Order: sequence, then structure tokens, then C-alpha cells
Amino acid sequence: MTDASADDGAGAPAVVDLQPSCTAEEVATDEYYHATVNGVVEYGIFVDLSEHVSGLVHESTFDGDREFEVGDDAVVKLTEVRDNGDLSFELASLEDYETVDREHDYERVAADAVGEHVGDTVHIEGEVVQIKQTGGPTIFRVRDETSAVPCTSFEAAGVRAHPDVDVGDLVHVKGDVEERDGTFQVEVTQLDVLDAEDAADVAGRLEAALDELAEPAEIDPLVEWPALEQMLPELRSVARTLRRAVLEGRPIRMRHHADGDGMCASVPVQYALTKFIEDAHQDGDAGRHLLKRLPSKAPYYEMEDATRDLNFALEDRARHGQKLPLLLMLDNGSTEEDTPAYKALDHYDIPIVVVDHHHPDPEAVDPLVDEHVNPYLHGEDYRITTGMLCVELARMLYPGLTDELEHVPAVAGLSDRSKADAMTDYLELARDAGYDEQFLHQISEALDYEAYMLRYDPGTQLINDVLNVNGDEDRHRELVPFVANRADEDVAEQLDAVESHVDHERVANGANLYRIDVENHAHRFTYPAPGKTTGEVHDRKVEETGEPVITIGYGPDFAVLRSDGVRLDIPTMVEELNAELPGAGVSGGGHLVVGSIRFVPGMRQQVLDALIEKMAEAELDEELHSAPKR
Amino acid sequence: MTDASADDGAGAPAVVDLQPSCTAEEVATDEYYHATVNGVVEYGIFVDLSEHVSGLVHESTFDGDREFEVGDDAVVKLTEVRDNGDLSFELASLEDYETVDREHDYERVAADAVGEHVGDTVHIEGEVVQIKQTGGPTIFRVRDETSAVPCTSFEAAGVRAHPDVDVGDLVHVKGDVEERDGTFQVEVTQLDVLDAEDAADVAGRLEAALDELAEPAEIDPLVEWPALEQMLPELRSVARTLRRAVLEGRPIRMRHHADGDGMCASVPVQYALTKFIEDAHQDGDAGRHLLKRLPSKAPYYEMEDATRDLNFALEDRARHGQKLPLLLMLDNGSTEEDTPAYKALDHYDIPIVVVDHHHPDPEAVDPLVDEHVNPYLHGEDYRITTGMLCVELARMLYPGLTDELEHVPAVAGLSDRSKADAMTDYLELARDAGYDEQFLHQISEALDYEAYMLRYDPGTQLINDVLNVNGDEDRHRELVPFVANRADEDVAEQLDAVESHVDHERVANGANLYRIDVENHAHRFTYPAPGKTTGEVHDRKVEETGEPVITIGYGPDFAVLRSDGVRLDIPTMVEELNAELPGAGVSGGGHLVVGSIRFVPGMRQQVLDALIEKMAEAELDEELHSAPKR
Amino acid sequence: MTDASADDGAGAPAVVDLQPSCTAEEVATDEYYHATVNGVVEYGIFVDLSEHVSGLVHESTFDGDREFEVGDDAVVKLTEVRDNGDLSFELASLEDYETVDREHDYERVAADAVGEHVGDTVHIEGEVVQIKQTGGPTIFRVRDETSAVPCTSFEAAGVRAHPDVDVGDLVHVKGDVEERDGTFQVEVTQLDVLDAEDAADVAGRLEAALDELAEPAEIDPLVEWPALEQMLPELRSVARTLRRAVLEGRPIRMRHHADGDGMCASVPVQYALTKFIEDAHQDGDAGRHLLKRLPSKAPYYEMEDATRDLNFALEDRARHGQKLPLLLMLDNGSTEEDTPAYKALDHYDIPIVVVDHHHPDPEAVDPLVDEHVNPYLHGEDYRITTGMLCVELARMLYPGLTDELEHVPAVAGLSDRSKADAMTDYLELARDAGYDEQFLHQISEALDYEAYMLRYDPGTQLINDVLNVNGDEDRHRELVPFVANRADEDVAEQLDAVESHVDHERVANGANLYRIDVENHAHRFTYPAPGKTTGEVHDRKVEETGEPVITIGYGPDFAVLRSDGVRLDIPTMVEELNAELPGAGVSGGGHLVVGSIRFVPGMRQQVLDALIEKMAEAELDEELHSAPKR
Repeated sequence: MTDASADDGAGAPAVVDLQPSCTAEEVATDEYYHATVNGVVEYGIFVDLSEHVSGLVHESTFDGDREFEVGDDAVVKLTEVRDNGDLSFELASLEDYETVDREHDYERVAADAVGEHVGDTVHIEGEVVQIKQTGGPTIFRVRDETSAVPCTSFEAAGVRAHPDVDVGDLVHVKGDVEERDGTFQVEVTQLDVLDAEDAADVAGRLEAALDELAEPAEIDPLVEWPALEQMLPELRSVARTLRRAVLEGRPIRMRHHADGDGMCASVPVQYALTKFIEDAHQDGDAGRHLLKRLPSKAPYYEMEDATRDLNFALEDRARHGQKLPLLLMLDNGSTEEDTPAYKALDHYDIPIVVVDHHHPDPEAVDPLVDEHVNPYLHGEDYRITTGMLCVELARMLYPGLTDELEHVPAVAGLSDRSKADAMTDYLELARDAGYDEQFLHQISEALDYEAYMLRYDPGTQLINDVLNVNGDEDRHRELVPFVANRADEDVAEQLDAVESHVDHERVANGANLYRIDVENHAHRFTYPAPGKTTGEVHDRKVEETGEPVITIGYGPDFAVLRSDGVRLDIPTMVEELNAELPGAGVSGGGHLVVGSIRFVPGMRQQVLDALIEKMAEAELDEELHSAPKR
Repeated sequence: MTDASADDGAGAPAVVDLQPSCTAEEVATDEYYHATVNGVVEYGIFVDLSEHVSGLVHESTFDGDREFEVGDDAVVKLTEVRDNGDLSFELASLEDYETVDREHDYERVAADAVGEHVGDTVHIEGEVVQIKQTGGPTIFRVRDETSAVPCTSFEAAGVRAHPDVDVGDLVHVKGDVEERDGTFQVEVTQLDVLDAEDAADVAGRLEAALDELAEPAEIDPLVEWPALEQMLPELRSVARTLRRAVLEGRPIRMRHHADGDGMCASVPVQYALTKFIEDAHQDGDAGRHLLKRLPSKAPYYEMEDATRDLNFALEDRARHGQKLPLLLMLDNGSTEEDTPAYKALDHYDIPIVVVDHHHPDPEAVDPLVDEHVNPYLHGEDYRITTGMLCVELARMLYPGLTDELEHVPAVAGLSDRSKADAMTDYLELARDAGYDEQFLHQISEALDYEAYMLRYDPGTQLINDVLNVNGDEDRHRELVPFVANRADEDVAEQLDAVESHVDHERVANGANLYRIDVENHAHRFTYPAPGKTTGEVHDRKVEETGEPVITIGYGPDFAVLRSDGVRLDIPTMVEELNAELPGAGVSGGGHLVVGSIRFVPGMRQQVLDALIEKMAEAELDEELHSAPKR
Repeated sequence: MTDASADDGAGAPAVVDLQPSCTAEEVATDEYYHATVNGVVEYGIFVDLSEHVSGLVHESTFDGDREFEVGDDAVVKLTEVRDNGDLSFELASLEDYETVDREHDYERVAADAVGEHVGDTVHIEGEVVQIKQTGGPTIFRVRDETSAVPCTSFEAAGVRAHPDVDVGDLVHVKGDVEERDGTFQVEVTQLDVLDAEDAADVAGRLEAALDELAEPAEIDPLVEWPALEQMLPELRSVARTLRRAVLEGRPIRMRHHADGDGMCASVPVQYALTKFIEDAHQDGDAGRHLLKRLPSKAPYYEMEDATRDLNFALEDRARHGQKLPLLLMLDNGSTEEDTPAYKALDHYDIPIVVVDHHHPDPEAVDPLVDEHVNPYLHGEDYRITTGMLCVELARMLYPGLTDELEHVPAVAGLSDRSKADAMTDYLELARDAGYDEQFLHQISEALDYEAYMLRYDPGTQLINDVLNVNGDEDRHRELVPFVANRADEDVAEQLDAVESHVDHERVANGANLYRIDVENHAHRFTYPAPGKTTGEVHDRKVEETGEPVITIGYGPDFAVLRSDGVRLDIPTMVEELNAELPGAGVSGGGHLVVGSIRFVPGMRQQVLDALIEKMAEAELDEELHSAPKR
């Protein structure tokens, strides 16, 4: 504190308006200040100049008749700084003056530089991105344009310090840098929410830094394919959104279809995000807190899953002070069936991003999600699989992964039986990377098998080995043939059981119709499940006959549909069945020519009869081809 | 240590009997002491004066012919304190003496004041309430009449210090106060179990303090209602028991019916206990360790649940040194079906407290539980719902919650279709708090829906928002209509499926009987479940006909029963069916006029026929009304 | 550092070859050294003498024309050690010289003695057994022949230090000993992988120490029984393998049959291993990390379980740097049905050890497992139960447990209805320990009941009480009769339902055949499950008739088989049925005369008919006896 005089004789005297965070180091005797009365006593009034500066105006310095009330404004002059730090003021009655703003004066230290100031007092400005209450102090994680740093503040054991400060607030922190187990933290001595003007400055800096850091890598697509290339700008936007979420400390909850294409989509994105999180956060545990990959049991986002997701998100917020997550739907999420769950999340701050290649219902979905990438929205179809899209997305999310992902689009394409012309290029790319087509098929089979055995546990380490993304190459080469053979054996055993019970008839349009009671003539609760069992029978029949084939595998309350050489439109058939058969409760969908439906058990016969009638009337296709799985 | 002489020449000399915890600071040369021989060597005997004071009596000081054995008593005089602290005694042979007790002399510090003694050595007396072994020291949590403080004692890494000290022991701790991350702990230098007399003192102090702290808040019931008011003393006693459990560090495991009334009962109690735990424990994590709310799948306490609860309790004790829990049953627990599970817990120190409004079986239940509150035990019935009771309980548990709970009894009443006259007052109270009746209905529907979607996860944050107890008011207002509408849509879809398959007949007593095969003509594994589906059909039929109605929804091995205008007694019917149909394995129950039964699938036809026969003979009621749900 | 001269004038000068871990303390001016060029600059070359010693050879000291490339070898002489520690060399061109190896010179401190060196710098040599990355430092757990000690190394927050060092490497650590919460750790200042020679030394020391420590206790079997005694050497080998796994920090994952014998086998082994882990590891949490006991749902090792086990193991390795586990199969694991799961683990470093008494298929199993103990492999049979074997195994694993385990073989024998002659001795042994036969039966019943109620949760604390192994004796005495009675009541209730629906016929060979539809005429999802229900009916029929009895309990896709007095060979029958009934998908097995089979639901009638036909042709046994359960 230095003596100074604001009243320099020239013109109107200056009256200083201290910013709330100013301290006693920023006042000087003989200066005038704007003050607010915060107490009235017999011998005078107490005034506040800022959050940290206050003092007494003795009544002897003003006309005792003058009445003050708490909250009144006043102009005062600092007359004395006592030895104990107390400040004495006198009341000023200036006829004319000029207001001068004084900002709290400190040298800002960047969050990523606190390590150079161990033992020193530093000032940091940034956004509070997490508030965690421990049994001891409260930990505020404050992020500036360079990094995030934990700031610990102790009020009383287990008591929330600064209860007025919330996640998202822009703050100034003053504190002492400590090193503990090799990580740095700031022991808070002062923590203020910035006023509007300063907050705007900081927000601007953060925004600019985030914009820069969130910018995805520039990439060329793995193969030349205009159909996919037109979608790259949208994928770039998704990449930007995801990188930004990571930078802002918002957890990402990834839900994906638990099949081959869903794995090929989600695993590369998981890998890329994990790498990016490692770079962007000091905390070695950040990867675990900020990213979850969750295979979905149903081929759409079930209300139970959404409820569980929301519940976990709210618990994490309550317990760890985390932000609510961003929901990333992969190879799932484009259809009307997803919308009830989306609506359930709508009341919470949970952005939703979808990358899918199932037949979409943009009218229902788009109002509820933030971004929606789907080839059908570009006049393309399921042949651009989600895995193909997400490999490009992963490459945008984190540079340098290309070599490790070159085989993945081919696996995705084979898994979903993509008939895209680009498959030739993808297969060649994979071959050049050391994967022949048969081995790629085995990877696809192995993914399917492990997905079943893991029963909706992500099984990250194991799946990484099977797909050879962030896994062990040697083990991959050993493991894949073993698992694929195991899967083949299980399929063969299932087909042994099913074979003699497949019913055949030729329907009106000339197609072969095969029916299987998968509940009574297949092993239950083992691999392959009814959907795959039906698919395997279907594939064999297509090969055997070389003619159009429809295959229906049915259980008590569901039917799985596969077709080749027949122009089905399953979503429309479901709608019609629902109208024609009140009380049958038909629902379902999938792709156009393959899918699955559900109904109430007591109406199975009627539903199957009506369904077959419709299929018998469908036009045949010139070209026979295997269709994608659902 | 100061020189002193007990032998002051006047009368018989004094022989000091040291308390076990006395240290060398409490002896003085030339004083006489009672001692015990703990070793006999060639050159003398070693004697103990207390646990911490011992020394040598050289044989030169007594007639070498005198024979001592370990364990012999002796009177000795302290002759010298050597530089290294060793004590030398001589044997005394006093003809006459007077024994003087000497207590270990220390100034006790209150547990809640250790923070003022950081760096100092302090003495604490209290009860060991938890013993936790870490990879390093053992942590004894010691509670006195003011608070509990962790005392760390290090023997060797991961080795239990003071293996003779158990949870529940009353002890004296001497140690140095340290501050670590803002919490205080005592690094133990001495830890003794108190002798009987001192233990009684401490126990008395603790008891008195606990009695005072455990005393519930004085409240007036939310509405004037003598039927409920007569139950307040019992609720007060429950509140006292629960507060005391918290104070003693005994975890509370709350099991409740997973329906609307069960939520309205458990959520306010959870809220109140959480607040009280925060006040009573220094540890920010205490809430998580000391309270669990668990919705029960069955409408009674299943043996599987009890086994799981017991297993968790035993694991927590083994791993965290926690006490075994108190079991609090809410809106569940009054019936004979609960007793096998109660008996399974009977061999462990697990008190059981029940607050329920289902038709009770006090003869079976009361011998097994510590407290049992139920309106039927006061000549009242289900109309006093558990939610109504528990809102009063919550208000006793923690003062100041009234404003936040005023709407809850009305939700509870609507959920269980309470026909109580007091409902008018409860609805008015809710209306004054800003909840109109339609909105209260929506809350009730939303609770039901979320309970289903959460599948027996407590989902605390989400449920708090739905019920608006310790939740977010704005979100509550948005969320409830959305969820209620969603529930309505799902019910409508289910009824669409069911409608055309409801069988109707008029039975002997003139009532309408409706039957639904909910396994074959309703969607399975979706909301609403069979019980609610049956209830919704029933409600529509009551409204349509305006006549007495019985509705049965049946599956392969169960039937759900609803009735209006018919005087059923389901518990009695179950008993009769069991006797009449050997091999049908009928069990079940619920309220008198609504409930559910189970049987073996192969006997379904016989059971349903016999059941309907009984129902056809039941008397009709003058007044038609909706009955409570089970 | 001291001055020295290697060039002592006598004979060829010595050129020192520094070991990689040598430091600047081990060089001296005027000595010659072997060096490697690691940089070429305008003014000279930089050379490395060891990992920690390098310096500059100024070009003025050699003919500037001479060309060096990075990687070239050179002989240099140390000319100067500057004040800042920099070393200056000159190039030497010796015509003749002698190479002298210089080892890094330090005094090794034993890992179990670091506690005596707090505050000092120490050197430790050993194997890295775990590497754990924290949010701060990396923690290397280094084990020498005495113990394991955590060594913390900080590179940057959350960044893996010494990324070149892997688990299994033999290393030299230099660092400062610190004490933290009573545990000791070494803060690493230097960490080198040892060169081949030194590594061999350390490996030799470790190996010798491990060999000694891994040696099991010498025991005499509990009863004299040559049939079992011949198996002791194999059990000793298993004990050695398990102790060694513990010493090497390899987790043990124990999978066991979830029945009485399986519990009697696994609980004593768990107890013994827990004690041994406590002794062998400083870390109080080691027991939790190094041992898991997991009851298996199926009577064989299911692929789902193996996948889940593998997934957990990989996650633990990724998160906690743990080794992959050893899989210990108890009372399970000997049959062909286990082999697919074994093969799935074969690609990972997961040793498998089996102790079982089910009819084994050594040709299928032995190539896949490391050790396989089974009485059938010694010409004995199921009568030597796994529990009997494992009590001996537990006694070898940890001495001093005999008194606590004397009653366990009798419980195991009763649980599996062992007809061994030695049962008399086991029952006597148990009786002498205070367990009469009726009480042993009750323990067996109680184990069965709790296994069901715990639903594949290990429930360690509870099971320990029931079996009274590492439990509470008083509670054991109270709990067992209660649980056994409860089980009896549930069985009685189930038999009430079943009784009137048991079909009887006398088949060709004269045996009584009883059939029960356990799906339709028994309670579902309650205790007792179909297998036990069938067994209970069977036992009653054997007693009633005193004649040969076959009992079949069937559901939609399974049948449970029990027989007495009939020579069945179930494994062979399953093979035949599979061949005779294509499309029936028959699988299963168990013991010879009792077991269970599965089939597809639609073929149930055919399968049961064919099965009964085979049974009707089986030879009768002279002697009637109860057979073991599966």
C-alpha cells in the first residue's frame, strides 16, 4: 500500500470505484472511493469499498444528524491505515467528481504454468468446470485457455466452501501453489465470481482458445467415394462438438448397436477420444470419468436405458460434481423408436449427437437431437455403414490413427453386408494392411460372438484385441481364428437342431418362404441368438435355391425377417399390421428388407398369417443379394 | 514427575492403587503402591503398578528367602527414578495402611474441539464406533458426547493395531492432533480400554448426550386427523430410534415397496435422515455409508433380498469396520410373508423397524421386529397411507422440512386411492403449496413409471426431481407432465392390445367378472406390467358399468385381483384355496379387496375356477369405490 | 569421484567398460573408457559411456578429418570434470589395451529392510511385479527375494514414467525411502533394466527364494486312506503353484461348483490363501486384489463366464497393472464341456489348475490345463469328493488350520453322498470336533440353501458362518439349524405341490420310473430348484419302495436324472441320443448315474421317450445306494 492522492488539484477530483475483487493492497490514503453502507453504529457507519475492503467512517467526520441506512451509497476518503490493517475513512461531500474504475491488480498465471510457481501465490482466471466436495476441502476445477487446475478451498471438514459459486461460473482465484504426489493444486485464499465485464473477457479468451483446440484434424477420406465425401462436413461438425465436450470437461456417453458394424463404429471413436482426453487433461483418471462406451441391448434407444443413463449422470453430478454428459448414438438412434427416450432426456442439459445408417425418421428425430448424420439424409442408403463413417470421424478426432484403422471399414462393410462399390477399395486397403478377405470375415464373426458372450458389457480390452484397434496385434492374429471357429461350430450345432424343422412353401409372387420356430426348435439362451440363427438359415437357402427367398424366424412374441430378391418395406408393413390387427400390438422395424417385429403372444398366428400375405404380394427384385442385418 | 511422600507420619500410611491407564507421570518417590509380580529373576522381582508403570524390586531390599510367583500381590515403595526412566522399588511390609485410589490424571478434550489443539497432545474418552484397517495404520473412530474423531494407530503396514480393542469398547486415547486436508485426526500414542468404573462414567455421559441428541423434533401434524394423531407417539419412537442409529454410527438400510406410496414414504425419510447425518457426522462421505434406500421387487421382504442385505452388511463390517445396519421397512413388512426373511436376520445384531399400512399379521411379525407402526393396529385401515405417516416421521427426524413436504401426503393418498376424509385437507394443503389435483395425479403416475424404468435401482436424483423433494422445482414442473403423458401413452398402447381379449361374465352375486390373459394378450416386459394393466382395465370397467366389478389378470403362474363393490377377503381365500387344492401351491395376499396370488402353472385352471367360485359368493358392498393398489 | 589412473605403465592400458547403470561417481580422470558416439557437432562429438555418463570430445583432441557417425564406438580418456559436472574427454588411439568391466557400485538394501532407511538413499534390485499409473506418479512394485516395495516415479502428472520398463523386468532402483501413513515407499531417482548378466543373478536369487517360500507345508492326511494318499503329491504340486502365484503377485480367480461339495472345497482354500497373502504382502488390500472366489452358475465352465473372467482380468491389468490371473477350478472343470472356455483363455497368459471329482475327460482337458487332479485319474471315483481333497490342499497352503477344518470333509461327503469307507473316519473326526452327523447334514442343507439365495454371489462372510471356517462359532451354531429348517420347510412346500403329479410306471428292467413336470407342477424361481426338487422326490421313492428307482424331472428344454440300483452311463446315453435324434440338440452330462441333459423344446417328447427306452434296458445293480448329486 502506497500513499497517493487522487485529488491532484486539476479539474474535478477522481472517485475510485473498486472492482469487487480488489484488496487492501489497492487503496491508498487520501484517495476518494465509492462505498456502500453495511452497518450503522452509534459512533459512525461501516462501509464496503469492495468484497475485501471495508472500514469505519467515524461520526466525528460528518454531521451526526445525517441519517444513513444500510445499503446507502456514499463517497469516502481514506484517512488512515492502522497498524492492524483497519481502515479509517471520512465522509466526503464533493460537489463535482469524476468516477475512475479500478480493476483488481494482479498478474494472471496460466493454468498450465502453475507448476513453475510451487510455493508462490498466484492468480488464475477461468471457468469452474467441476466442483467436488471431499470429506475435507472442496475442490474447484478451474479451466483457463491453457488447461484446468484443481483449486482446493477449506471451510470446515466436508463443508462446501463458497456455496455461491457454481459450475460454469467465471472466477478469479488467488492461492498458493502446492505440489502433491507430482500433481499441482492451488490452495485457495480468495475466490470471486468475476463481474460481468471481466467475465466477458475471460469467456472470450476461453471461447477463442476452445474454438482453436476443438478444431478437428484435416483429413482426406480413406478411399475416394463421393457418396461418403458429401457427408464429411457433417462429420467434421460432430468431431468439433465431441472435441469441445472433452475440452469443457463434459463426459461423453456413447451408446451403440451391439453388432459388428456398431463395434467398428464405436471402438475407433472410443480410441480417438481416449487419446484426445489424455492430451487435454492433466488427470490420469480423466479417461475413465469422461468417456463410457455402452452397447445397447435393443436396436434402438430403450426408455430403460435412457432412464438408467440419466440416473447415472445425475448421480455423477451429485457425487463428483461432473457436468451432465453428451449422448453419442452410433449405429443406432435415427428412428422414431428412439424418440421417447430422447424426449425423456430433453428436460436435462444433455446434448444428443447421432451417427447412424438405419432408415431414418428425420421429422421425428431431428427436433430432439443436436446433430444427426445419416446417409439416407443425403440420398444414400445403409451401404455407407456407420463403421465407415466413424473411422473418418475418429481420424478427425485425433490425428495419426490412420494406419491402425485402415482395415476397419472393410470389417464394418462385411458385417452389414454392404453392397457399396467402395467395398472393393476398402477391401484392397485392408489387404494392403495385411488383412485378406477371409480374415476380415473372421473378425466380423468374432465380433458378433464376443458381443453375445459379453452380454452388453463393453469388454473394451477384449474387443480391442479382436478388432485390433488399440489392441495387441499378435494376440489378435491368434484370437480371431479361434473365436471365429468357435462361433462357426456353435452356428453349425444350432443349424443341426433347426434344420429338420424348417417349413417351406412357395408364395404367390414366386418367392420361397421359409419358417422356423426358433423358440421350440433351436437352443435357447446360447449363441447364435434367434436373429442370427434365422439369418444363417436364410443365407443357406439363398445359396441353395438361387431364387428369391424370405425367411421368418419366430418365437412367442417376435419374428425375425430376412429377404433376398424381394422388395419389402418392413416399416410400412408394421404400420399396416397395426391398423389391420387391433389388439395384436405390432411394433418393430429395422432396415427396409430385413428387420424384426414384436407382437402380443396370443395374436401370433394372425400376425404371421397377415405378414406372409403381404410378403407374398411384394414385387420381386431383378438382382439377388444379401441384405444388411439388423 | 515430582517428589512426594504419602507417608506423612499421621495415621496409617497410604498405599496408592494406580488405575490401569496411569503413567509414570503419576508416581513419585517414597510413595507406596499396590503392585503385581510379573516376573521373577535371580536378582529380584519385576512388578506392575499399572499398564504403563512397572519396575524392579531388587532382592537386596527383601529377605531373599521370600518366595514370589508371577501374579502375587505386593506393596512396594518407589525408591528411585533413574535417568533412563527405569523405576526401582523396595518391598514394603506395612502392618497397617490405607489404600488410596489414583485415577490417571489428564484433562479430557472434547472430540468436537480437537481442531483447537492441532500439534498438541490430547486425551479423549469415548466409545469405539468403527475400526477400519487400512494398508497403513488402523483407524479407530472414537465418539464422545460431542462428536466422533478418527484416531490412527500404526503397528506395522496393514497390521491391526490394538487387536484387543473392539467396536463398542469404551476407551481412553492419548495422542497428537494432526490436520490433514482440513480434517482432524489423533495420532494415537496410547489407547486403553477403560476399567469398569471409568467406563460406566463415560457410558453415562454418552447415554445422556445421545438421549438428548436423539430426541425428535416436536411437530404438529400437517392436518387435523385424530385417526393419524393417535399414531404420532409410535412414530416419535421410530424417529428416536433412527436418530439414535445415526448418532451411534449404525447404518440404516431402508427397504420399501417400489410404488407411489412407497416412494412418498421413503423419499422424505431419506431426505430427513441425510440432513441429520450431515449435521451429526464430520465426515462428508457419511451419508453414503450410513443410509441406503432400496426399492423391493416383491411386495414383501423376500428371502433373496434378506440374504443379499445380510451379505452386504457383513462385507461392510469386514471391509470398513461398520456396525451391522438397522433395517427400516416402509410400506412393506407387516405381513406373515415377511417373517421368514426377518428370522434369517434374527441371528445377527440387526434391529428391524416397520412402518406399513398393509393388512398386518402382528402375531407373526411383532415378536421379530423392534417397532411396528401400522394403522390397522389402531383400528384404522389402509386409508392412512404409509406416505402420510412417513411425512410426519420425516418432520420429526429433521426440523424445517415442512414446506418441502406439504404436497407429499396427497400424492401418497392418490397413489393408493385412499378414501380417507382427510384427503380433502391434504389436497387443500397441496393446492395451497401450488399443486392442483391433476398435477398430483401426474406425479403419482410419473413415480409409477420411473419406478418401473429404474428396475429397483433407487434412482435418487431422478425420483427427487419427480416428487420434488430435495430436487429441482423447475425441472419437476417440466418433467412430471412429460413422464405422466409418456406413461399414459404406454398404458393406452397396452390397453389397445388387451381390449379385444377381455372376457366378461356376470357371476352369481351379480358382479361383473372380467378376465384377461395378460401373458398372451398384453405386451410383455414393458410398462405397464401385468398388475397395473389389470388395474387400468378394471378402472375403466368400473366407470363403464357403474356396477360391482371383479377383474382378474392372469399369467402362467400368477393372477392379479382387483375388485370394487364386492366384499372380498383375499388373505382368507388364499388360505382356503391352499387347503382345497393340494398340489396347487397357492400363496399370496395384499390388501383385503385387491391383491395377487401365485400358484404352480399346471394347476392354473383349477385355481382360477375355485377362486372365481369364491368371488361369486362374496357379498356386495353398498358403496362402490376404487380400492388401493398392491 | 576420485582421481585415478588406469594406465599404470605396466602392460597394456586398461579400458573400462561401464555397466549401463554406472553413474558419474564411477569414473575418474585419466581413465580410458569404451564409449558410443551419440552426437556429432561442428566442434566435436558427444559420447555415451553409460546410461548416466556422457560428455564431449572436443575436435581439438583428434584429427578433425576423422569422420564419426552416431553409433560409432570409440575409446576415450576422461580429461576433466568441470565444476558444473560436465565431463570432457579426449579421443584415445591405443594400439593395445585390455577391457575391464566395471559394475555399478552400490550396496543393495533388501526390500523388507527399507523401513530402517527412512530418509536415506537406497539401492534395490528385483523384479517389477506391478506397474500402476496414478493421476500423479507411476508406481512400480519391485519384489526382491525378501518382499515387494512400491517405488514411485514422477515424470508429469498422470504420465507413465519409464515407459520402456514392463512388468516382469529385472531392475535396479535407486531412490529415497519415505514413510507415508506407516507404509514405506521409495521415491525413484534412477531406474534401470539390468543387463543380461546382472539380471541372471537377480533372477537366480529370486528363484531360489521363491522356491523356498513356495514350498507347501508338510502334512499328514486327516484320516488314513490310501486311495486319497496316492493323490497327495499332486495336491502338493497344486499347493506349490498357488503359493508361488501369490508370491509373484499373480491374482488367483477361483471358480467352483455352487453346491455343498463345491463350497467345502473352495472355502478352506480361500481361507488358507487369504492367510498366506496376508503374510506374503505388506499391502493390507492385497487379499482383495489377489483372490476372488466365484460360484459358477452352470456345472461346467461356461463360455460366458470365461469371457467375463477374461474381460475383468484384462481390465484389471489395464487399470491396476496387475498380472493376468491363475484360474483355479474346484469341483468343476474336468469334463469336455469345459474345454471351449479353456481354449478361449489359451491365447492369454492364464495358467489353469483343476481339482475335481466329476467323471473326467483327460484327453480333452489335459492338453489345455497346467495341472489336473481327479480321483478317476487314479482309478478312484466321485467318492473322494473335491471337498476332501481341498481340505488337504488348504492345510498344505497354510499351516495351522487343521483344527478349524476337521469337520469339513464330512460335510463334503454328506453333500455329495459319498459312499467311501473313509466316511466313517471323517464322521468320527467331525464328531470329536463337536459335530454330530445330524448337524453335519444340517450344514450341508444350509450351504445348499444359501448358495441358492445368494444367486452366484460368493457371500463370503455368510458362507463362512454357515460352514464355520473363518467364521463365528456361536453364530454358526444358531444359524445352521435355522437355515436348515427353513430349507426343509421350502422343500416340504415344493413336494406338496409336486406330489400329486408324479407319474409312475415300471419299466422293462423292473425298475420304478418316476416322472415329474417340474415346470408346470412345481413352484418356479424358488428354492428348491428343479434339480433338487427331483432329487428329493427320488430319495423319498427309493426309501418308500426299497427297489431300483429312476426319477426324471423335466422342463421345456431340460431333464434332471436321478437313479439308484440301475447301472446308467449318462455321458454315453447323451452321445447316443445325439446321434439318433438329429435336430434334438441333446447335450449334458454329470456323473455316471445322475446328471442332467438339455435339448430343444420342440423335441422334448422324442428325447424323453428315447431316454426312457435306454434306461429301461440298463442293468440293475445288486446294491441300492444313493448316488452323488450333480
